[in-house]
Amino acid sequence: MSVESGSADRLFITGGTLVSGEGRMLADVLCEAGRITAILAPGHADALGVTAGQVIDATGRYVIPGGVDVHTHMEVPFGDTTSSDTFTTGTIAAAWGGTTTIVDFSCQRKGEDLRDSLETWHAKAAGHCAIDYGFHQIIGDVDETSLAAMRHLVDHEGITSFKLFMAYPDVYYSDDGQILRAMQTAGDLGAMVMMHAENGIAIDVLIAQSLARGDTAPRFHSLTRPSILEGEATHRAIALAKVAGNVPLYIVHMSASEALAEVAEARHDGFNVFAETCPQYLYLSLEEHLSQPGFEGAKWVASPPLRSHHEHHHRDLWRGLKLNELAVVSTDHCPFCLRDQKEAGLNDFSAIPNGIGGVEHRMELMYQGVVDGHISLERWVETCCTTPAKLFGLYPTKGTLSVGSDADIVIWDPVGRTRIGIDHKHHMNMDYSAYEGMDLSGRVETVISRGQIIIDNDQFLGRVGHGHYLPRTLSNYLY
Amino acid sequence: MSVESGSADRLFITGGTLVSGEGRMLADVLCEAGRITAILAPGHADALGVTAGQVIDATGRYVIPGGVDVHTHMEVPFGDTTSSDTFTTGTIAAAWGGTTTIVDFSCQRKGEDLRDSLETWHAKAAGHCAIDYGFHQIIGDVDETSLAAMRHLVDHEGITSFKLFMAYPDVYYSDDGQILRAMQTAGDLGAMVMMHAENGIAIDVLIAQSLARGDTAPRFHSLTRPSILEGEATHRAIALAKVAGNVPLYIVHMSASEALAEVAEARHDGFNVFAETCPQYLYLSLEEHLSQPGFEGAKWVASPPLRSHHEHHHRDLWRGLKLNELAVVSTDHCPFCLRDQKEAGLNDFSAIPNGIGGVEHRMELMYQGVVDGHISLERWVETCCTTPAKLFGLYPTKGTLSVGSDADIVIWDPVGRTRIGIDHKHHMNMDYSAYEGMDLSGRVETVISRGQIIIDNDQFLGRVGHGHYLPRTLSNYLY
Amino acid sequence: MSVESGSADRLFITGGTLVSGEGRMLADVLCEAGRITAILAPGHADALGVTAGQVIDATGRYVIPGGVDVHTHMEVPFGDTTSSDTFTTGTIAAAWGGTTTIVDFSCQRKGEDLRDSLETWHAKAAGHCAIDYGFHQIIGDVDETSLAAMRHLVDHEGITSFKLFMAYPDVYYSDDGQILRAMQTAGDLGAMVMMHAENGIAIDVLIAQSLARGDTAPRFHSLTRPSILEGEATHRAIALAKVAGNVPLYIVHMSASEALAEVAEARHDGFNVFAETCPQYLYLSLEEHLSQPGFEGAKWVASPPLRSHHEHHHRDLWRGLKLNELAVVSTDHCPFCLRDQKEAGLNDFSAIPNGIGGVEHRMELMYQGVVDGHISLERWVETCCTTPAKLFGLYPTKGTLSVGSDADIVIWDPVGRTRIGIDHKHHMNMDYSAYEGMDLSGRVETVISRGQIIIDNDQFLGRVGHGHYLPRTLSNYLY
Amino acid sequence: MSVESGSADRLFITGGTLVSGEGRMLADVLCEAGRITAILAPGHADALGVTAGQVIDATGRYVIPGGVDVHTHMEVPFGDTTSSDTFTTGTIAAAWGGTTTIVDFSCQRKGEDLRDSLETWHAKAAGHCAIDYGFHQIIGDVDETSLAAMRHLVDHEGITSFKLFMAYPDVYYSDDGQILRAMQTAGDLGAMVMMHAENGIAIDVLIAQSLARGDTAPRFHSLTRPSILEGEATHRAIALAKVAGNVPLYIVHMSASEALAEVAEARHDGFNVFAETCPQYLYLSLEEHLSQPGFEGAKWVASPPLRSHHEHHHRDLWRGLKLNELAVVSTDHCPFCLRDQKEAGLNDFSAIPNGIGGVEHRMELMYQGVVDGHISLERWVETCCTTPAKLFGLYPTKGTLSVGSDADIVIWDPVGRTRIGIDHKHHMNMDYSAYEGMDLSGRVETVISRGQIIIDNDQFLGRVGHGHYLPRTLSNYLY
Repeated sequence: MSVESGSADRLFITGGTLVSGEGRMLADVLCEAGRITAILAPGHADALGVTAGQVIDATGRYVIPGGVDVHTHMEVPFGDTTSSDTFTTGTIAAAWGGTTTIVDFSCQRKGEDLRDSLETWHAKAAGHCAIDYGFHQIIGDVDETSLAAMRHLVDHEGITSFKLFMAYPDVYYSDDGQILRAMQTAGDLGAMVMMHAENGIAIDVLIAQSLARGDTAPRFHSLTRPSILEGEATHRAIALAKVAGNVPLYIVHMSASEALAEVAEARHDGFNVFAETCPQYLYLSLEEHLSQPGFEGAKWVASPPLRSHHEHHHRDLWRGLKLNELAVVSTDHCPFCLRDQKEAGLNDFSAIPNGIGGVEHRMELMYQGVVDGHISLERWVETCCTTPAKLFGLYPTKGTLSVGSDADIVIWDPVGRTRIGIDHKHHMNMDYSAYEGMDLSGRVETVISRGQIIIDNDQFLGRVGHGHYLPRTLSNYLY
Repeated sequence: MSVESGSADRLFITGGTLVSGEGRMLADVLCEAGRITAILAPGHADALGVTAGQVIDATGRYVIPGGVDVHTHMEVPFGDTTSSDTFTTGTIAAAWGGTTTIVDFSCQRKGEDLRDSLETWHAKAAGHCAIDYGFHQIIGDVDETSLAAMRHLVDHEGITSFKLFMAYPDVYYSDDGQILRAMQTAGDLGAMVMMHAENGIAIDVLIAQSLARGDTAPRFHSLTRPSILEGEATHRAIALAKVAGNVPLYIVHMSASEALAEVAEARHDGFNVFAETCPQYLYLSLEEHLSQPGFEGAKWVASPPLRSHHEHHHRDLWRGLKLNELAVVSTDHCPFCLRDQKEAGLNDFSAIPNGIGGVEHRMELMYQGVVDGHISLERWVETCCTTPAKLFGLYPTKGTLSVGSDADIVIWDPVGRTRIGIDHKHHMNMDYSAYEGMDLSGRVETVISRGQIIIDNDQFLGRVGHGHYLPRTLSNYLY
Repeated sequence: MSVESGSADRLFITGGTLVSGEGRMLADVLCEAGRITAILAPGHADALGVTAGQVIDATGRYVIPGGVDVHTHMEVPFGDTTSSDTFTTGTIAAAWGGTTTIVDFSCQRKGEDLRDSLETWHAKAAGHCAIDYGFHQIIGDVDETSLAAMRHLVDHEGITSFKLFMAYPDVYYSDDGQILRAMQTAGDLGAMVMMHAENGIAIDVLIAQSLARGDTAPRFHSLTRPSILEGEATHRAIALAKVAGNVPLYIVHMSASEALAEVAEARHDGFNVFAETCPQYLYLSLEEHLSQPGFEGAKWVASPPLRSHHEHHHRDLWRGLKLNELAVVSTDHCPFCLRDQKEAGLNDFSAIPNGIGGVEHRMELMYQGVVDGHISLERWVETCCTTPAKLFGLYPTKGTLSVGSDADIVIWDPVGRTRIGIDHKHHMNMDYSAYEGMDLSGRVETVISRGQIIIDNDQFLGRVGHGHYLPRTLSNYLY
Repeated sequence: MSVESGSADRLFITGGTLVSGEGRMLADVLCEAGRITAILAPGHADALGVTAGQVIDATGRYVIPGGVDVHTHMEVPFGDTTSSDTFTTGTIAAAWGGTTTIVDFSCQRKGEDLRDSLETWHAKAAGHCAIDYGFHQIIGDVDETSLAAMRHLVDHEGITSFKLFMAYPDVYYSDDGQILRAMQTAGDLGAMVMMHAENGIAIDVLIAQSLARGDTAPRFHSLTRPSILEGEATHRAIALAKVAGNVPLYIVHMSASEALAEVAEARHDGFNVFAETCPQYLYLSLEEHLSQPGFEGAKWVASPPLRSHHEHHHRDLWRGLKLNELAVVSTDHCPFCLRDQKEAGLNDFSAIPNGIGGVEHRMELMYQGVVDGHISLERWVETCCTTPAKLFGLYPTKGTLSVGSDADIVIWDPVGRTRIGIDHKHHMNMDYSAYEGMDLSGRVETVISRGQIIIDNDQFLGRVGHGHYLPRTLSNYLY
């Protein structure tokens, strides 16, 4: 390969092993004007006389699509505070971890105007992102106005997925009638319904009883959100989606075996039900993390909660990922600092802002799952890059190394190591790491966004404002 | 057997085949002072020198315990009207059909005082019944006061079962938090929770949409209450009972395969879940009854609704009965006349008073199930007499032919026939029969309540006021 | 109650609590000429002037039907030896434990004549039994002759159940074609097929491999008979019974969760499938018993084998018993002495005679299950007395306290205790006890067979030869 | 794109839509020396100055990997005859249908030497094939010798999959012990076990009974092979694979819902179980085909048999394909002429040679499934090309359009039509077509094998002997 000035905007990645959800191949990748323009057998570039302005030697490396994290919450209000990563800090952290696309949430709270919320979120993100981003829309107040707005968002705003909550009364909660109506509307539009599936009405009774008993420590956050009630809500959401006419349904942040069983059964019966899980539900537990002494456990207060390792949630979720009963791994990145933020719940776990930050570590943590034998290398790419792009209308622009696709590419060193921790790799705006001290196989070496190298050799080379808004099409491959 | 004046209060039933849930035996029954005092091998009464004032020859007949119908609604308000049977007309009709015990419902509506409701229902029934009766308590407003009243009813009023509704917002509906709290209280008390399991919140959306479309005829009552939503609510009720600590749960009037599957699975997993069905859900259907031309279908508007015969609800429910996945057959007797009452919904199916009258025909309809091969003779007695008595704290006073038990006895002619219809056998206060024209195998010949013959040879020989209130103990045999 | 010479053959049991599968009642029992002739409310015997020659005061005691053990092997050949209990020693031991009926097996081995085998077994038993007995027929060689003999046995010999083996090639094994043919014939006759469900062909490979590896100790008996292969054979037997036309099928001596799941599923789907377990599969385990040091484990070599307590077989089987997924508890009593008999396999577990003796302790061990909360008192009677009698055509002669039934009765002291062990209660002809050292709640106080007291106050009062052969009718209550 | 002499061996496919299991992209494909060397964004070839000797305009066409049919039987003996396609006629027919790779079976019958059989099959195929081919090995006689030969075939012959039969006693049948041993050996080698899962022992009883009754017509072939017995054998094969240590298992030619349910459950539980179905089980039925008058039905005698359309096998198999419960579509191509061959069973269905020919129509029939909405376009490619190559060690040489892969490519006209029938498209050596008269959407336009155009514009341009033997690696992607 010769490097010539005449093809200065060409980037050539040579010598690597391309990995897709389908398989692996030794191949070179040519990018031009931000897109992938050729996949070439090794050595053929020279034979064809192809030249490039910039060449990356990926010998011994995996070359994969940039990660697509379809569940993040930057700058989201929670009670009196706001999640600690801005779209700037959060997208830079994402880039550090090999994620080149996020889909965040525009949030309508009860009583607010849905279209206003989208404007607000556009204002938060526009010009501030280091990587590309899109939005799902949370509907916190299903009524005639918000149902009408759904159509507008699909038709004109590139927003084709809508999240509802079966928890959080007074904030985002929809009752079953509201859920049914939103599902019917989504079905008409071909849009995807995303569901936070926990029975918040019953949970709030358990919380009140726990606090009344004086059980206020962080671990009671999990004990008052039993996995049965995640399974219940998942079953109910599926039933409502059936009544609405087999509307596509996507269960977010699944943490519990009971919920997985419901999704697996519905899929087996032919219904369009999908689910994601997050690394925290695959690695962390009630006993080892949420129950740490004093207030430490607050670091891991998120909903759904970390589950007991005496039950088989980790094992079942890994198996579900392998079998495509779980389709996607996202982070539900929602960071809060321990100091000043989490501390709002020092004497009352229910006042602790809910969320775990992890947008930086998803690709790394899941690669460890490959090394540990839980999933294949191909499935790692599929669940972290390709399927999320497909399910949310970003494919083939994102999530794949295909000609014509955006040149969002990660060069992955399979034998490098990544040590996570506040004093090690940690670029999220948090005063602790949820994965402190983990020493993982594999390492992000180079990250490319639309043909631009934004991370290389432990340096951030990107630019705030580089990230564009991504209007999304309908979910294109339901099965 | 000699008939002597010296044993005038003795009643002797000779020559019959006694049937219990366990089996059959040729035996004679001696009753005294309203109770069964001896079971004797045929011929042994003479050998022992036993005498009686009254002798019934039951040769060629089955001798069974009086029927126990644990789900009736006499004189119950519904909208602006009241179910058409009084405790007098309803209990006389029950007696005609071989039922000697009913358990009706004291009803607390939202905003009413629970203990007041019980007084009201005592006033309706006391002195007006032809057979013995008890009460379950409906809790329409779960709060601190009603939860406290539950304890009072269990400890002092002989009421050990509490019914909640997942349907009928604004009248009886409890949300999942209220259900959980009532279940916790029932668990503490050892009481049974009964559940109307339909997702009323979602159903109300479907009803409003149906009416808005102009689909107002009676059959839309069924189409807006899909069986999926009965299955959903059943699953949810079971989940909440698990969270409350495996509290005994009894699903009333099950109509749908989906709901049965949930109960069967929970039972298989070892949970204390029970269910009843009713004859209407075993014999009648959306197409043949609810869809009759004009307003005729209104006769069969009840909730849950009659289901489509294109699905397998009938088959599955019969099988569930055989296998004890369904434990009990009750009637949910809630009669309304077509004229003036059902007609309230002439232009709006949702305004039709909900209910089907059948207290008179349960034993007859279920005996037909024996003849048709759906269940055994023993299972007929078990589901219609013994198990309802056991589950609701009436056993062994009721529901069994044991010495010491009340002499509530039916002499059943297995080769007689019963023709149901407004011009045939029909003693309920209704201007139509839900089972009009059915010609059934078997016939109630003689009915005895506490040793008194109240039906014999097609004559009512009983007495209004003979029926006593039955305080009930806790459910004594959970498995 | 007066005791008068004029009614010398009358036995009167007073003051006890009668327990059936249905429930309990305080009642007196009058027996005459070996049968139960009256059940009387307490005190009514005097009122009626009933007299008896013999009176038992059962105050504070349970009065239950004599136990029915439908799976024993007295004097059965196994390899070069014979099980150590004769019909005399075995039936006396049974009597000591409250069992008043056994159903043993007439055994046709491959190459033998089926009807000859029955003569042989009649010769072993006739005149030598202390309690009543019947026979199932093992068919070890399914062919035209044996299929024809099945009809003869049903029509003329009172044998209505036939046992087949999916294990033990060269002795009893039937291939799937033979099983299908025998099932078809049984279906025509209305007879019950009993199945030893283990995949013996695969097991024999595992045994040979284990021995070849030098793994010859008793515990390898279990490790070479994995529970998966019991589940497999159970599934296959059910499939063949479906193909044969839903022929009634009874899985003997179930030991494994996998097998239970198959039976439960088939029953739920409406098929006529039943199963029994044995106390050894509820109390004993691979680790605690079969793996005892040296050759001790040989005491517990039986097929199917004891299972690992790390799996959930005990829990699942108890639950299955509670829910009637398991219908019967038998013993599979097949005793061998450790010395000289079990020792045949000192260097080769596969040469150890298969069997555990327990006919004496079934009622005692299962009553402990009542005390431990696994099953109800009623279910104890149902699974140990009533259902076995029903399923095998002995009801209502046996298995129930009904008038007209044989006066086979046990007086059970609920607060007494039973200590099992070679130096304690042990009347079986074995040089060890499989339940050595167990100290159980409850105690057999008095045992009555056809009106004769055969055990009382720790004395055997019966008579060898008292026991009669019981021709059996068809299974009378399939559900 | 310029066509230049200097790059004469280059083939360039331009303007098409490449379809993989992952998705679609507009891209051009460059092939050189029989392999794919570049995938280029449209228009970029010119920009890069790429030239080619041969250019195909695929505008408006799908460009897909050549089909991989992993289940064919050319020239296979059956009774006294041999399947009617030679490796020459069969591979030419395959090419006509867009299939560029077959994996046929070397067959060891009982009593034959396994390695001899492989030589025999090599002799049949070598030099006679129009497309590339590999072999699985059938083991008809599991013993020490054949187990040892398995290792040789894996290590030295490129044969990594072994087929066993649970049917056909005296020919190919293995008993459960033999199956277990072969599975253990396969597990050690990392090889795949393929299973014909029907309970042939029970089936042979049903066949004998049917013939004895005079039920000899072709449709009794299906009635004597009930789907329950396919489900049973599938369950058993899975159980044995579990006992052997979760050995990879591949169920061939699945026809029945019961079998699918077993596979789905095992997969859900995490076991390495896979299955294929064939077009005949998705389109044809007992009633419409096998039951045609006279002897016509013989055309469709294959094992497993066509199933009743009154059951839901078609629906369930399509759904299983969609959900990856079924991984592969093969043909089980095993053609016999009606005249002289099938006619061997004129008076005895069991003498009819078993087999349906379809190697020519798999891609066409399955594309119709895309048009009919059963599966996606991507899933069509995945089940017919990519997954079979992966599961049988041919990927990425075959089954994918990746650089470095063999240039086996089909140009598919999505709007063309294909009419199947003896007078239309029919190149198999059969005197009838199993799919006679079907008029399908889509059409094979051009077929390329290792860069050579072998079918184009309804002409066969290939060459007998072009096809090479494909030694295969181990199955590379178990999940």
